[in-house]
Amino acid sequence: MARNITPRNENYSQWYLDVIKAAELADYAPVRGCMVIRPTGYAIWENIQAKLDAEIKRTGHVNAYFPLLIPESFFRKEAEHVEGFAPELAMVTHAGGEELEEPLAVRSTSETVIGHMYAKWIQSWRDLPVLMNQWCNVMRWEKRPRLFLRTSEFLWQEGHTAHETEQEAREEMLRMLEVYRKVLEEELAIPVLAGEKTAGERFPGAVDTHTCEAMMSDKRALQAATSHFLGQNFSRAFGIQFQNREGELAYCWTTSWGLSTRTVGALIMVHSDDDGLIIPPRIAPIKAAILPISKDESIAANDILPKAKELSAKLDDELGGMFTKVDTDFHMRPGDRFFAHLQKGVPVRLELGEKDIAAGTVRLVRRDTGAKMDVKNDEVIPTVKKVLADIQANLFSRAKNFRDENTHDASSYEELKEIIADKGGFVRAYFGGTKDDETRIREETGATPRCILPGNDTGKCIITGNDGARLTVFAKAY
Amino acid sequence: MARNITPRNENYSQWYLDVIKAAELADYAPVRGCMVIRPTGYAIWENIQAKLDAEIKRTGHVNAYFPLLIPESFFRKEAEHVEGFAPELAMVTHAGGEELEEPLAVRSTSETVIGHMYAKWIQSWRDLPVLMNQWCNVMRWEKRPRLFLRTSEFLWQEGHTAHETEQEAREEMLRMLEVYRKVLEEELAIPVLAGEKTAGERFPGAVDTHTCEAMMSDKRALQAATSHFLGQNFSRAFGIQFQNREGELAYCWTTSWGLSTRTVGALIMVHSDDDGLIIPPRIAPIKAAILPISKDESIAANDILPKAKELSAKLDDELGGMFTKVDTDFHMRPGDRFFAHLQKGVPVRLELGEKDIAAGTVRLVRRDTGAKMDVKNDEVIPTVKKVLADIQANLFSRAKNFRDENTHDASSYEELKEIIADKGGFVRAYFGGTKDDETRIREETGATPRCILPGNDTGKCIITGNDGARLTVFAKAY
Repeated sequence: MARNITPRNENYSQWYLDVIKAAELADYAPVRGCMVIRPTGYAIWENIQAKLDAEIKRTGHVNAYFPLLIPESFFRKEAEHVEGFAPELAMVTHAGGEELEEPLAVRSTSETVIGHMYAKWIQSWRDLPVLMNQWCNVMRWEKRPRLFLRTSEFLWQEGHTAHETEQEAREEMLRMLEVYRKVLEEELAIPVLAGEKTAGERFPGAVDTHTCEAMMSDKRALQAATSHFLGQNFSRAFGIQFQNREGELAYCWTTSWGLSTRTVGALIMVHSDDDGLIIPPRIAPIKAAILPISKDESIAANDILPKAKELSAKLDDELGGMFTKVDTDFHMRPGDRFFAHLQKGVPVRLELGEKDIAAGTVRLVRRDTGAKMDVKNDEVIPTVKKVLADIQANLFSRAKNFRDENTHDASSYEELKEIIADKGGFVRAYFGGTKDDETRIREETGATPRCILPGNDTGKCIITGNDGARLTVFAKAY
Repeated sequence: MARNITPRNENYSQWYLDVIKAAELADYAPVRGCMVIRPTGYAIWENIQAKLDAEIKRTGHVNAYFPLLIPESFFRKEAEHVEGFAPELAMVTHAGGEELEEPLAVRSTSETVIGHMYAKWIQSWRDLPVLMNQWCNVMRWEKRPRLFLRTSEFLWQEGHTAHETEQEAREEMLRMLEVYRKVLEEELAIPVLAGEKTAGERFPGAVDTHTCEAMMSDKRALQAATSHFLGQNFSRAFGIQFQNREGELAYCWTTSWGLSTRTVGALIMVHSDDDGLIIPPRIAPIKAAILPISKDESIAANDILPKAKELSAKLDDELGGMFTKVDTDFHMRPGDRFFAHLQKGVPVRLELGEKDIAAGTVRLVRRDTGAKMDVKNDEVIPTVKKVLADIQANLFSRAKNFRDENTHDASSYEELKEIIADKGGFVRAYFGGTKDDETRIREETGATPRCILPGNDTGKCIITGNDGARLTVFAKAY
């Protein structure tokens, strides 16, 4: 097996694609800009879905399914929304052998069509809040596609809620931001900054956008999830009205929030190394690979394989799922078999060789550190469980330390420019500028404001010099 | 609350739509032919997904995701396939503000694009079998849409497998047919006939199609799932070749199989009655509704509600999920509250009134039979579990008896015509005719061959008079 992964410090983009290819996570589709999510990549997404879906339901939301095709005219009902999304839409113009009267957009996000349905369903304050979510595919036509990060089609969940009061809707936005932070940090082991977006970075049509921003291992930022307070913009555009407790007609306050297959790209870039993928144990489809090993293929297959299967069954039982895999590629050399699991990011490798069996031990190898240990047979199960928890914690703290080490403060615009140019990473600075200021910063430095940090830390704006500017993180971003 | 469901024997189509509306299962989308699956309908689909996905994985398959858009030219590579699907395709012709060089079809089924990818991934017999499944949306443009049964967009799973030998592929087709039978009968309580399709009813491009056919409560048939042996048709069209054990290049043998949101329509039509939806307990999102009841709203809310919540928590714990719902619509009249749960098909209703509490009992009402019983407090949990199992079994046997009572034998074409015209239902007859004969039968009777029954029962064909014709079920179908 070829060790065919370009080193990170040689060519980061190529490293990223090589990791995906070696782990068989995704492939290019025949239609430019689209991707195929292969079984290993999809199993990671299914695990992310399972964790997030449980949180979405725990917080009182229900799933539903809204249509793929949206009349083009719907997008024009909210002025900022159409400006933001029209350039990326894919349009169905013919169907059933005929030209359609009105072109239909393939959904890029569903505020419009869901707003249309909410207007039909919601009558009274008793119908509120409406708390729905959908898991689906969306299309945003990409000129420069990149697997998982920017593809013309991607998978996501989009939550859409309608409330009686502004306060409830703002609380909902923050509740879901916290759900995203929790899933990203606790399950994906990705440390994030959860905070508010500046005016130039808001979702088209939102009054307030909050975001979870993560640092990749090339020090660039990636927006991993967003949660929007939409005010009454969409309820006015689509007529989502209700009779309030005073018997008067009022417009709902709405929110939307989403997390996509982009997070699989973040997962890859935060944790993986020059040997390939590393998957945090809580998200890994296979948590432990078990390898019967012998120079004599028949000993491996006849004598050792039954012991490997027994261990696999016990571990699966203990871990509560089909989380182990017994490797039976006896036709391959042991080194190539080891490397196959390395590249695929399996957290723990358990080797059962003839010597191990004679000694009553199993050799355990950690994917994150490469550390090896010989574990006595009767300690294998508790040791694997402990090591998996250690790996999860280690991946998180490693990523967090990396982010903290690569976060700098700038007290002036000159200093911000220098740091971005010389060191990269996150730069904290007080910022209270306009959208135009954001554009100027982006054009001059390549960096954008990623989020305003929570809390009341204010100071003198590095652009305008005005007091009361909020502490904001800038970075180059994916 | 209005009892707004049209009786079945008055207008079956309207009854069906009324049941869906009253239970809030689905609604029409703004784009003609498309639907919105509302939370209750989607929760039923999620439960079907969970049961079927577990079986798909248990039988060794993995999930993946292939792209929504497929180059139009791909459909033309398999002659029968394009003939079958081209008239129903929705076409994306513009994207990202530009006209595309080649129109892209929104997938109606994914044999073509998956075949294209398999040709890239499969090299050797060691790579086989490839056993993949995807859960996704597909579009087939419908001129006469009907919620769940025929919509321009629907949700489904489509399995696609590639094998070394014809025998393995044929076994795979039958394995998945059996998985469908099991899920439909054991989980959805829908009795099915699992058998082979005649030539005129095969999937476009298949060598052999098998089907699960169910009888709805208006005696018409509905195809609930299909499993196809595709021979080498798609592997030749897309070049899915592998080096076999003898070192020669060979074409794979492939299968595909699918089950869609159409089964939600079948579920509605098999079990429901003039009061509305009935959901089999194993698929029901809410298995028991718990209603604190008092003429005095404050007694219901303050004294009885805590007891209801306690019972709900215990039952959820026992049933292993959030399967109960406490009804707090104290502003509604008890009769309207009862009816709301009836219409939504909740299998069991538990009423806690002041008299019940004084007597140390709970009133239990079954949705399927309407039977009422007063259950002692300490027997509520085992009784509910038993009643849920009884309801599941009763719904299945009720549907099976109905099907059997409405299945007739015809020894001649004249007899078949008479039975279809006078009684409807399923008609068994020996049939060995051609596609043209099938067309003639359909035109003259409205019925089609639904499936050839398994087994070796043969006789004289009612059309050609030739011996050796197989026993085939005919019916009018959805």
